[in-house]
Amino acid sequence: MSPFSPFIRATTPPPVMEARRWIQGKTFPADRPLINLSQAAPIDPPPEALRAQMARMVVNEPDTHLYGPVLGLPALRAEIAGRWSAAYGGEIEPADVAITGGCNMAFCAALATLAIPGDAILLPVPWYFNHKMWCDTVGIDAIPLPCDARMNPDIEAARPLMSGHVKAIVLITPNNPTGAEYPAGLVAAFAALARAHGAALILDETYRDFDSRETRPHNLFADPGWRDVLIHLYSFSKAFRLTGHRTGAIITSPERLAEVEKFMDSVAICAPTLGQKAALWGLRHLGDWVAGERAEILRRREAITRGLARLPGWKLLGAGAYFAYVEHPFAMRSDELCRFLVDEQSILTLPGTMFSPDPEGARQIRIAFANADPDGLGRALDRLAELTHRLPRRDAPPLATPLASPEASA
Amino acid sequence: MSPFSPFIRATTPPPVMEARRWIQGKTFPADRPLINLSQAAPIDPPPEALRAQMARMVVNEPDTHLYGPVLGLPALRAEIAGRWSAAYGGEIEPADVAITGGCNMAFCAALATLAIPGDAILLPVPWYFNHKMWCDTVGIDAIPLPCDARMNPDIEAARPLMSGHVKAIVLITPNNPTGAEYPAGLVAAFAALARAHGAALILDETYRDFDSRETRPHNLFADPGWRDVLIHLYSFSKAFRLTGHRTGAIITSPERLAEVEKFMDSVAICAPTLGQKAALWGLRHLGDWVAGERAEILRRREAITRGLARLPGWKLLGAGAYFAYVEHPFAMRSDELCRFLVDEQSILTLPGTMFSPDPEGARQIRIAFANADPDGLGRALDRLAELTHRLPRRDAPPLATPLASPEASA
Repeated sequence: MSPFSPFIRATTPPPVMEARRWIQGKTFPADRPLINLSQAAPIDPPPEALRAQMARMVVNEPDTHLYGPVLGLPALRAEIAGRWSAAYGGEIEPADVAITGGCNMAFCAALATLAIPGDAILLPVPWYFNHKMWCDTVGIDAIPLPCDARMNPDIEAARPLMSGHVKAIVLITPNNPTGAEYPAGLVAAFAALARAHGAALILDETYRDFDSRETRPHNLFADPGWRDVLIHLYSFSKAFRLTGHRTGAIITSPERLAEVEKFMDSVAICAPTLGQKAALWGLRHLGDWVAGERAEILRRREAITRGLARLPGWKLLGAGAYFAYVEHPFAMRSDELCRFLVDEQSILTLPGTMFSPDPEGARQIRIAFANADPDGLGRALDRLAELTHRLPRRDAPPLATPLASPEASA
Repeated sequence: MSPFSPFIRATTPPPVMEARRWIQGKTFPADRPLINLSQAAPIDPPPEALRAQMARMVVNEPDTHLYGPVLGLPALRAEIAGRWSAAYGGEIEPADVAITGGCNMAFCAALATLAIPGDAILLPVPWYFNHKMWCDTVGIDAIPLPCDARMNPDIEAARPLMSGHVKAIVLITPNNPTGAEYPAGLVAAFAALARAHGAALILDETYRDFDSRETRPHNLFADPGWRDVLIHLYSFSKAFRLTGHRTGAIITSPERLAEVEKFMDSVAICAPTLGQKAALWGLRHLGDWVAGERAEILRRREAITRGLARLPGWKLLGAGAYFAYVEHPFAMRSDELCRFLVDEQSILTLPGTMFSPDPEGARQIRIAFANADPDGLGRALDRLAELTHRLPRRDAPPLATPLASPEASA
């Protein structure tokens, strides 16, 4: 029998595939169809105008089907550099930008340039599970960094964790899974902390297009020395709904991109060409459309925030990007509760246990609201409300039987 | 300044990008345009029928734009299982098949399931440079395995190299860069050697569709215990010209694929969906077309084999897949010669130094003939013939001056 890497054996299986299995082959009642609140990405295709362009590229532009340069199409790199410079008030050159096969690949590439087994990175908890999984796969220690009550990573808790082994601090803002939009000052403080310790700040801004703030999310690019510390990651999956085309980006120093180029060449040769062309067309033509998407998602955020406030015992910990991150009130682990929600309420969400190694995870749930229209969200909230009298609460007095009567759990 | 991994720093930059730089911005004489014999992949788009299907998928099938399952579309996995079972005379189940974002990714995934830093694999020399680069990036030792005069890996040389650290033997057949088609018996011997040492055999058959043999290239799948030792890799880039869509495959045990799933989820989430759909359509409809491609490539192989035989002092070491691997006769390192060929003869090839850590690499060149039509090949051979009296030969008597007169070097 051929051998197995102990690193990958110790890596958690993909939580998303586990959640898929919960609903696989299951039929839901006709009067209670499944409401899927598990997805961190759009479930509709790109707008028709973009699809038409993509079809044209497939038929008429032969290079759509060919390898491009390892670090991406020059026109796309230049377009990103120009637009990001304007958006962040800094100077980003085309040579600072590379295209990857999605934002996960950008993270893996960044880490490969920074660290080797035995090194460490700081990951705020709750974390994005793929970040933790990749650390485990490559033998890099993911040090959990606690968040405060607003789901912001705790800078004071970070300071004593910064040893020489720590090669990077990783922040996702707006955050997956919590939705938290980190204040610009906090992001700056983490950049300063990383810089002071000769580490990098990996800043994953996959959900930047849906940030509720009208101001810049941070000013790091305005510092001419940003290349010494910052590794910015981005995804085209959300804004232009290009999930299936695997197109992401990484912005950092040309010196680091020379190392990213080695990673990309070995792992992927290049990012898929059609996704790159589609991203370029989208950047040039879909600004207004994305603004409309953002407005709609912010309306949905408002709706779920108000709805959750009315649910007895539920506590909203964070809301932003595609996500509301909540504390449920029940005397049940979140992974059990999420299975129960599928089976009894036809709602699919992901439990905090998928995002957190801490006991808190068992009380938390990620509700990805962005794909649910207001009607669907209303129905989902109604179904959650039904649980109020069906399940015992954590803060209720101890019961003789595990299932409480409505009176006991109210 | 943020840190760099010593592993990636020690990794060679992508040779293909270096070769691109040799011709970048250069203008070639009108009467002597560039003949590009460097490419290991098609340079034309997929056939029109497939492009039309892909355009239809883009416009009409919303799921073309969405994430699919981490290990690939079930229909494609099943199609591969069925066709490969028939082609190899074995039993391959859909659960044994996964789809990756190209064959490089399949290799990286395979290695991640097998080995950790400090472990080793055997790589025949000359090697495929991306395999060596990935080993360096992840800290796995690539032990060079010598090939014999026919460019077949030397099984007797491999035996003493098999220590407990060796987790896999990697074979590419038909080979990149040498074109060698490994005899079925030799492949079986390496499988047995791997099995005897509890290692895996990674068999990269990217170029299988252009194998000149009418018989099965090996019988490993016919052994019901194949899953214990074999990891088969494949690419859809060559047969269907889908390079830009990044679609490859890995066939191994479901137990190992459960580990591949972790790698794929973290690095890529899934392979691009359009490439998967295109590959499925191609498998079902392009069998005859691929057979025609194969016949054409075999004609070109014949042409270059005959042409090289007439070039004084050149020696053909291997020919197959897209490649002729040759020993040049000149008193010049192959990396210098290849630059000279670009500048003076408007021919781009890759030097053996890119594929080999051994001194032999300096005498070798890979000629990727598959994209050159017979006219182009003829012109390329004529240009190489011109060198006969321009460059001093390795086996010529020592000269007083480094550049020989035509008489001295003949």
